[in-house]
Amino acid sequence: MDKLKIKSLIKQLSKLNYKDMYLNDFLLTWEKTDDEIAAVFAVADILRGMREANVSTRFFDSGLGISLFRDNSTRTRFSYASACNLLGLTVQDLDEGKSQIAHGETVRETANMVSFMADVIGIRDDMYIGKGNAYMREVSKSVLEGYRDGVLEQRPTLVNLQCDIDHPTQTMADMLHIINTFGGVDKLKGKKIAMTWAYSPSYGKPLSVPQGVIGLMTRFGMEVALAHPKGYEVMPEVEEVAKNNAAASGGKFTKSNSMAEAFEGADIVYPKSWAPFAAMEKRTNLYGEGDEAGIKALEQELLKQNAEHKDWHATEGMMLKTNQKTKFGEALYMHCLPADITGVSCKEGEVEGAVFDRHRVAMYKEASYKPYIIAAMMMLAKFNNPADKLAERLECGRPRIM
Amino acid sequence: MDKLKIKSLIKQLSKLNYKDMYLNDFLLTWEKTDDEIAAVFAVADILRGMREANVSTRFFDSGLGISLFRDNSTRTRFSYASACNLLGLTVQDLDEGKSQIAHGETVRETANMVSFMADVIGIRDDMYIGKGNAYMREVSKSVLEGYRDGVLEQRPTLVNLQCDIDHPTQTMADMLHIINTFGGVDKLKGKKIAMTWAYSPSYGKPLSVPQGVIGLMTRFGMEVALAHPKGYEVMPEVEEVAKNNAAASGGKFTKSNSMAEAFEGADIVYPKSWAPFAAMEKRTNLYGEGDEAGIKALEQELLKQNAEHKDWHATEGMMLKTNQKTKFGEALYMHCLPADITGVSCKEGEVEGAVFDRHRVAMYKEASYKPYIIAAMMMLAKFNNPADKLAERLECGRPRIM
Amino acid sequence: MDKLKIKSLIKQLSKLNYKDMYLNDFLLTWEKTDDEIAAVFAVADILRGMREANVSTRFFDSGLGISLFRDNSTRTRFSYASACNLLGLTVQDLDEGKSQIAHGETVRETANMVSFMADVIGIRDDMYIGKGNAYMREVSKSVLEGYRDGVLEQRPTLVNLQCDIDHPTQTMADMLHIINTFGGVDKLKGKKIAMTWAYSPSYGKPLSVPQGVIGLMTRFGMEVALAHPKGYEVMPEVEEVAKNNAAASGGKFTKSNSMAEAFEGADIVYPKSWAPFAAMEKRTNLYGEGDEAGIKALEQELLKQNAEHKDWHATEGMMLKTNQKTKFGEALYMHCLPADITGVSCKEGEVEGAVFDRHRVAMYKEASYKPYIIAAMMMLAKFNNPADKLAERLECGRPRIM
Repeated sequence: MDKLKIKSLIKQLSKLNYKDMYLNDFLLTWEKTDDEIAAVFAVADILRGMREANVSTRFFDSGLGISLFRDNSTRTRFSYASACNLLGLTVQDLDEGKSQIAHGETVRETANMVSFMADVIGIRDDMYIGKGNAYMREVSKSVLEGYRDGVLEQRPTLVNLQCDIDHPTQTMADMLHIINTFGGVDKLKGKKIAMTWAYSPSYGKPLSVPQGVIGLMTRFGMEVALAHPKGYEVMPEVEEVAKNNAAASGGKFTKSNSMAEAFEGADIVYPKSWAPFAAMEKRTNLYGEGDEAGIKALEQELLKQNAEHKDWHATEGMMLKTNQKTKFGEALYMHCLPADITGVSCKEGEVEGAVFDRHRVAMYKEASYKPYIIAAMMMLAKFNNPADKLAERLECGRPRIM
Repeated sequence: MDKLKIKSLIKQLSKLNYKDMYLNDFLLTWEKTDDEIAAVFAVADILRGMREANVSTRFFDSGLGISLFRDNSTRTRFSYASACNLLGLTVQDLDEGKSQIAHGETVRETANMVSFMADVIGIRDDMYIGKGNAYMREVSKSVLEGYRDGVLEQRPTLVNLQCDIDHPTQTMADMLHIINTFGGVDKLKGKKIAMTWAYSPSYGKPLSVPQGVIGLMTRFGMEVALAHPKGYEVMPEVEEVAKNNAAASGGKFTKSNSMAEAFEGADIVYPKSWAPFAAMEKRTNLYGEGDEAGIKALEQELLKQNAEHKDWHATEGMMLKTNQKTKFGEALYMHCLPADITGVSCKEGEVEGAVFDRHRVAMYKEASYKPYIIAAMMMLAKFNNPADKLAERLECGRPRIM
Repeated sequence: MDKLKIKSLIKQLSKLNYKDMYLNDFLLTWEKTDDEIAAVFAVADILRGMREANVSTRFFDSGLGISLFRDNSTRTRFSYASACNLLGLTVQDLDEGKSQIAHGETVRETANMVSFMADVIGIRDDMYIGKGNAYMREVSKSVLEGYRDGVLEQRPTLVNLQCDIDHPTQTMADMLHIINTFGGVDKLKGKKIAMTWAYSPSYGKPLSVPQGVIGLMTRFGMEVALAHPKGYEVMPEVEEVAKNNAAASGGKFTKSNSMAEAFEGADIVYPKSWAPFAAMEKRTNLYGEGDEAGIKALEQELLKQNAEHKDWHATEGMMLKTNQKTKFGEALYMHCLPADITGVSCKEGEVEGAVFDRHRVAMYKEASYKPYIIAAMMMLAKFNNPADKLAERLECGRPRIM
């Protein structure tokens, strides 16, 4: 990306209304206006362009980005660390194993104790239905109070790195990949994207990706086709969001219980395993009750239920149903990675090896947007005039590598 | 805090004699002169003021702050990380689990091996009586030798993040909170602070806080009333320090076995559980001998002993005994956190929920001083002219967030 | 080191041909030309000189240095962190326990997913014969592809922090220590260095140090005498390298099964335990097969075999065989640390306490070169004109501690 292109992106950015993002959290994409969503995409592209042009985007001389992962993670952890580094923040992990959180501290207290110099807090908490997003809001409320009470010098803003409801950094990265692949938002009108369940030999994968996808991708005038076997329903509230989005954007939101139907003529496919919402709710309760036997029984039941749907498989045959007239000769295949690849990472999985391989580089690019999306969310929350800051930096040209 | 106020603090600082702090450790408050203690408070307040004014206090372009925690910790770990970040140092954790220390390396060797680029080393080692502070001195001696022998380019200075004897970063933060709450050191003459034991259902809490408090708070002309049940004595050497301090500062140091007596008319109360010194010594020996059965038996014995003193409880009734004429209408309640709150974090604990809640924000502020205290200790150890450096930075106005 | 000396080193550096190091990995010393090896030494000395002179060598305003340790490590971990910090990179650990690597991800995918903002990747993987170096090459290939495919904005270069074949950061640090101790490369012609096995009560120590030493030290016209009990052979390919190096440099490479013979007249001795190559190969296969019983049996066998060679011990008597006319009055004793010191860290070990103590400070200095060697490798891989960069920085004099 040359500097002229970056400049024009900054100009576009400066025309958007995103002033409410300042000193605010990013928890669910559907809480943000279209302008705000567009601002994230613009800042992400600008930051990427500037890094490629060896222009430093270190805007913090010091400051901390707290990370709180309640589940193992390589990709999101590295994306968050990369985003913090890009802006000049130092990551400090709140590892619950090492901390006293386990000893019964309240969320309010811990949130304040770790935030004296925290500019940003990134949280991943996707394990339990009804808990993750609620926990983030509790943390947000706590640090806002701490800021108002004069305990904290700054208000740390939150970035949702995946919760039980949404996975905004993933789906925003996915969406920016789609936008850039198809050549702009204006090219997406009428395109069809299939967000479908796929078989996996593992159990209990979070619902945040399919929910996040239908909650976001319905905003761009596309047809979003959600498909899954019966019993694998996602949260009804999010389907409601998708419906309303589609209506507002002039797109469509359809549901079916057929992968083939969803793939039919699709320009983009996103086949991926997830656990039934109802089962995840049940599991959350069993964990709450400490019912180990119940959890094991549920696991067996779910694995058995999964195994009835091995035909939900992104095969070559299935890809043939998609639109063969795209520039790829078929639908753009997407995945949040890692995928369960048949014959590679498991015996029978979500996708055939040949399909996966053909789209591998594109998927890596898809993933490469995440650090920039996170950094953009941070930047829009921490600066009231990001367009000016970026323009200024582009002018003065301080190099990243000196 | 406006810039004029910061300037006046820098001026005050420049009049103090703290030259011996340069290239020196901070291990026990009573090893420091009154001017040195005052310098730490001044630098802490200045750094806080500058951060609030968005002036960068990054004085290191590169450099490491080693952290060595021999016990779990959230607060102190984050405070140390925040302090390092504030000055521009990168934290590198020496996690004994991950390292080869466990394999029988000598302290001298490890201390040098991790310090080639270490400007500061922060150590928390409070588990075993007679060991923690001694270990810090061994590390300090080792790196001093390494520096003199030309192995290390710089002398890493140590900050005691809690040992078996003192907890200087905690008590200095506590004290700065008191000073700023009461409006200055000159307002403390004759005030009464009750450092009392309180019941907790857990066992083996360190003595470093009560010891650190009586060793420090006796220097300001206050009456420091130490109270605990019989059998919960603290180190006699530290009581000696407290006695001498009180005599020198025109204050008082009293001891009793009654919480009510200590609370009577107090302006400040600090009720907190700790383990009997003698029992901790015994435990240290049992650990040394690897006597698991002995440790378990001791634990049971101590829990039973604790349970005899459930009336050591910071209740509303107890608070009524304190000075009702302060600006809070009662004593300032303090705690190093986390507290055992009756009916919240445990069935019966150190403090009633209502008392704790009423003082919550003040306690959070109390904790918020710690990162600045640590950074001040570092700065006074690493710069021979901190007042000039701070003044210069305040003038040139390099922003923290650009 | 004064600035004139640093300038003269930069001038020397600028005459060397090291252009192929740019955007390249450092995996084995014998893949590098003599000029390239000399460039690493020069940059390491320059960086050290600049740090001592309080000149900042932070060349990255942001950027990540990924670390991937597949074995516990204090020294190398801290050396890598120090090197990254010295240049301005932030370390991000890829802890396999915390990540999804364990869940069957491919190397290619993970390598790309963690590298979006990675300038450097440091890997330690020395456990399994035939695996460590191969793994590094797989990672290198993956990120090179990622870079070419436009997934990664920069090509992350690799530094081998120890593999099954070589330990270049260790042996380069060792060698720079030798060069600086003896007063320059030109003083080494005809000097004798004994790389010998020594008894240790532990088992399975890696071969990378003896292999790395004979693969590197044979390039400087020295006599390199490798000695070990029968059955403790190192990789034949590396012996081949050593032979060729010695021939090319006008030195000698000898082998024997006698410690005394190797020590005879030596100017430098490096006695150190290692496991037999063949046994390590066997162990690798047993691990591959998950044969726990086989592994235990092999361990017992190896410990028994070790115990037959307790006379391979760096005693005072053995040191008397070395050249008594050096400036130390005997050979320079070297070790990569930690050593098994008889009567200190074990009952019977590699070296007598008195011998170790006499050379302790020199060994600490030996170790102190490692962060600079690593930083030099990074710098030569990331800049196409490091001599200019260094000269420029020396001129402009931006301080490390402001």
